[in-house]
Amino acid sequence: MNKILLKSAVVDVCCGNTTRKDILIGNGKFLKIADKVLAEDCDGCEVVDCSDFAVLPAFYNGHTHAAMTLLRGYADDMELSRWLNEYIWPFEAKLTDEDIEIASRLAVLEMIKSGTVFFSDMYWHREWTMKVVEEMGIRATIGVTISDMLTPPDELEENFAFLAAHTKESERVHLAVMPHSVYTVSEKVLRRCIEIARAENYILHTHLSETQKEVDDCIKQYGCTPVRLFERLGGLRDNLIAAHCVHFTDEDMKIFADSGATAVLNPCSNLKLSSGIPQIQKLLEAGIKLALGTDGVSSNNNLDMREEMKFAALLAKVCGSAETLPAHDALKMATSKVAETYGINAGTIAEGKLADCILVSLNDERMVPCHDLVSNWVYAADSRCIDSVICNGKFVMKNRHVDGEEDILKEAAACAARLTH
Amino acid sequence: MNKILLKSAVVDVCCGNTTRKDILIGNGKFLKIADKVLAEDCDGCEVVDCSDFAVLPAFYNGHTHAAMTLLRGYADDMELSRWLNEYIWPFEAKLTDEDIEIASRLAVLEMIKSGTVFFSDMYWHREWTMKVVEEMGIRATIGVTISDMLTPPDELEENFAFLAAHTKESERVHLAVMPHSVYTVSEKVLRRCIEIARAENYILHTHLSETQKEVDDCIKQYGCTPVRLFERLGGLRDNLIAAHCVHFTDEDMKIFADSGATAVLNPCSNLKLSSGIPQIQKLLEAGIKLALGTDGVSSNNNLDMREEMKFAALLAKVCGSAETLPAHDALKMATSKVAETYGINAGTIAEGKLADCILVSLNDERMVPCHDLVSNWVYAADSRCIDSVICNGKFVMKNRHVDGEEDILKEAAACAARLTH
Repeated sequence: MNKILLKSAVVDVCCGNTTRKDILIGNGKFLKIADKVLAEDCDGCEVVDCSDFAVLPAFYNGHTHAAMTLLRGYADDMELSRWLNEYIWPFEAKLTDEDIEIASRLAVLEMIKSGTVFFSDMYWHREWTMKVVEEMGIRATIGVTISDMLTPPDELEENFAFLAAHTKESERVHLAVMPHSVYTVSEKVLRRCIEIARAENYILHTHLSETQKEVDDCIKQYGCTPVRLFERLGGLRDNLIAAHCVHFTDEDMKIFADSGATAVLNPCSNLKLSSGIPQIQKLLEAGIKLALGTDGVSSNNNLDMREEMKFAALLAKVCGSAETLPAHDALKMATSKVAETYGINAGTIAEGKLADCILVSLNDERMVPCHDLVSNWVYAADSRCIDSVICNGKFVMKNRHVDGEEDILKEAAACAARLTH
Repeated sequence: MNKILLKSAVVDVCCGNTTRKDILIGNGKFLKIADKVLAEDCDGCEVVDCSDFAVLPAFYNGHTHAAMTLLRGYADDMELSRWLNEYIWPFEAKLTDEDIEIASRLAVLEMIKSGTVFFSDMYWHREWTMKVVEEMGIRATIGVTISDMLTPPDELEENFAFLAAHTKESERVHLAVMPHSVYTVSEKVLRRCIEIARAENYILHTHLSETQKEVDDCIKQYGCTPVRLFERLGGLRDNLIAAHCVHFTDEDMKIFADSGATAVLNPCSNLKLSSGIPQIQKLLEAGIKLALGTDGVSSNNNLDMREEMKFAALLAKVCGSAETLPAHDALKMATSKVAETYGINAGTIAEGKLADCILVSLNDERMVPCHDLVSNWVYAADSRCIDSVICNGKFVMKNRHVDGEEDILKEAAACAARLTH
C-alpha cells in the first residue's frame, strides 16, 4: 500500500465554480491528476474520499530557527538589546543537544499541524534538528550556521570541517551555508562562506538589512550597505537567499534583483521587534524574487505560515494598493516560491512534482461560502481547517493526528520548565 | 443543573508560575472564584475538570457587519469603487430577510467557534440578526443603521420609528443608533441621530475617518474634519463609539480624547482595503480609549478577534516601539475595553461579572511551553486552541461543537450559491 488516491478532490473554486480531480500519489510524487483515476488501476492503493476537502499545496517556511520553540512567550514586548542580553542569550547558552532535539520536535509538530512540510533552519546543534526532521517525515534545509563573533574559534572551524565532510544530506534533508549576518560575521569569514558555497554548490542563507541599525552600522564599518557588501565580496548571486530585507535602498533593490537572489520576508517578526514593514510593493516592482518565512518563535510567536501569508498580503496592500499581492500570489510566496528557491521540485499540485499537499476541510465555517478557494484559504481560514498533511507521498498528519504528539508536548513542557527553574 | 463549576482552571501563567482557581458560575454570573469550591457546596452543579484548560475572557467584537459572511471571498484585491459598484452593492441589493437570517447564523457560528460572545452590528434587516443572536445565546448591540443616501426616504423614517418604539431590547440584545458615516448621512439626519441618541440614552456608533478621501471630502464639504463635524453637531461625547479612526489629525486626537469617546480599530480591514495603518501608539499617547473589531467579512475576511488582536499588537509595535501595546493590553482591547464601552458588565474573569469566558486547551502545541499564558494566547495561538465557550453562564460551544452547526453551514452554502447563480 504505497500509493494514495485522493478521490474527487477540490483543486480550485473560482467565481463559485468548483474543479475536482482524482489525484494519484506514488513514489513520493504526484503520478496522475485526472478527472477520473480508478482505484483498480492503481494496484491496491489507499483511497481517500476528498469530496469534502480541498487539496492545496503544503507550506514551505523560508526562514526560521526551529529550536527556539522552547522560548515561546519567554520574553516579549521589550527593547531589542534587553531582550537579547537579559533573556534570549542566557537561555540559549544553557541548551544541550537533547534540549535541541526536544525543541525541534515541538517545532516540527507545530509546522505539520499548520500545514508546513519544509523549513530552512538557521540554528546551532544542527545534527539534532536533522535527526528530528528525518524521523518526522518532512523536509528541511539545515544551516551550518557561521559566526565568528557569536561562537568560539574551535566551533567555527568545526563548522567548516562539517561542510567539508558533507556527509549528512539525504532525500529530504539538505545542508546550506548560513553566515549569520554582516554584524556577527567578520569580513574574512564572510568571504570564506561565500567561496565555499559557490565552490561546493550550496545555498547561501543570511540575515540581511533587517534593521536600520544594521544598515547604518554596516555603512559606518564598511562604507556601504549590507547588500553592497555582499556584492563586493562576491556573494550577491542567485544562490543567495536573504532573510528580512526590510531596509533596502533603491540601489540595493536594483542590484539584488539583477543578481537573481531571493528575499525571504518575515513580516510578523519585523513588526513585533519593531524593525520595520517589508516594502512588498517596491520589492515586487524592482523585480525581486520574494518568498516567506516565520522567523523563530521567540519573535513571532508561532510557525504558522498561513498567518504569515495573511500578514504579507495585507501589509503589501496598505503599503501599495488594494490590488497589490492578490491572494494567489501571497499563496505562492508561502509555497512554490520557497520550494523553488531552495531547489525542491515541489510547491504545486501537478504531475511529476513531489507529493506534498494538505487536505483542507470545506465544511469549516471559515471556508463557507466558497466563492473563491484561495481567497478563503489566505484571508479567512486558520490552521484548524487543515485535516491532513502529506509530505513526500506519505501522511505526516491524518485527521488532525500526528504520531507521538502527546509525548512531544509533555517532553517540551518539562524541558522548558527545567531550563527556567 | 443551572450552575457550572470550572474546577482547577488555569487563570494565569506568568514567568512560568501557574495560578489555578475554582470558578463557580450561576445566574449568568461568576459567583465565586477561589482556591477551592466544593461541588457539594454548589447544589448539584455541572463540574468541568479544567486542569488542562486556561479560562480566559471571551472576545467582544466592537465593530462588524455580521451578515456580510455570505460575501466571504466574493470580491478581493481590487480598488474600492470597483469593489463596491460591481460586486458588493449589487450583491447586497439582492439580500432578503431570510438571507440575512442565514448569513447572521453563519456569522454567529464563526464568532462562537473563535471565542467571541458579543458583536456590535451595523447592517440592514436588523430584526433577523437580533432573532439569531437571541436563539444562539450570545450578545449583541444591534444598530438601527441610518443613511439617507444609501436608503430610500420611507426606510429612513421606518428606522426612526423603530427607535421611537424601542421594543426589541432584551437581556443580551441591545439597540444603538448607527448613522453610517459623514459621507452617507446628510448633516440634517446626522444631527437628528445625535439628538435621539442623547435624549434616549443610546450608544452612537459610526464609521469615522476611515480613509484619507473621507477626511478630504469632509473638509471640502464642511470645512472641517469628520471628528470636528461630530463635535460641531454635538455628537462628540462619551456615548460615541467610532469605528476605524485611521486618519485622525493631532487636533482630532486631542478633542476626541477629551470627549471620552471610544475608537474601535479594525486593522485587518484597514490594511486589506489599503485605507491606512491605525496609529495605535499616537492614539494611546493622546489618551484615547481604544477597542477592537473585525469589520465585515468582505474586507477581512473572517471574524476572528484573536487574529485581529495579533495584528493590532504587532502594528502598534512597528509604528511605535517593541514595548508598545504589550500582550495584556492587546487582550484588553479585544475583551474588557469593548465590553466596557458598550456598557456590558463583562470582559474579565471576576466575581460579579457576567459569566462569559473561553476554555483554552493548554495541551496544544501553540500553547507549549507556557512561560506566559497571555503572550501565548495573543501571539502564538489560533482558534483551534479554544475547546469551549460560555456566554451568560451557559455553554454555547462545548468540546468544539456548536448545536446545529452542520445545518448552518449547509444553508449558508446553498444561499450563497443561489445568490450568485
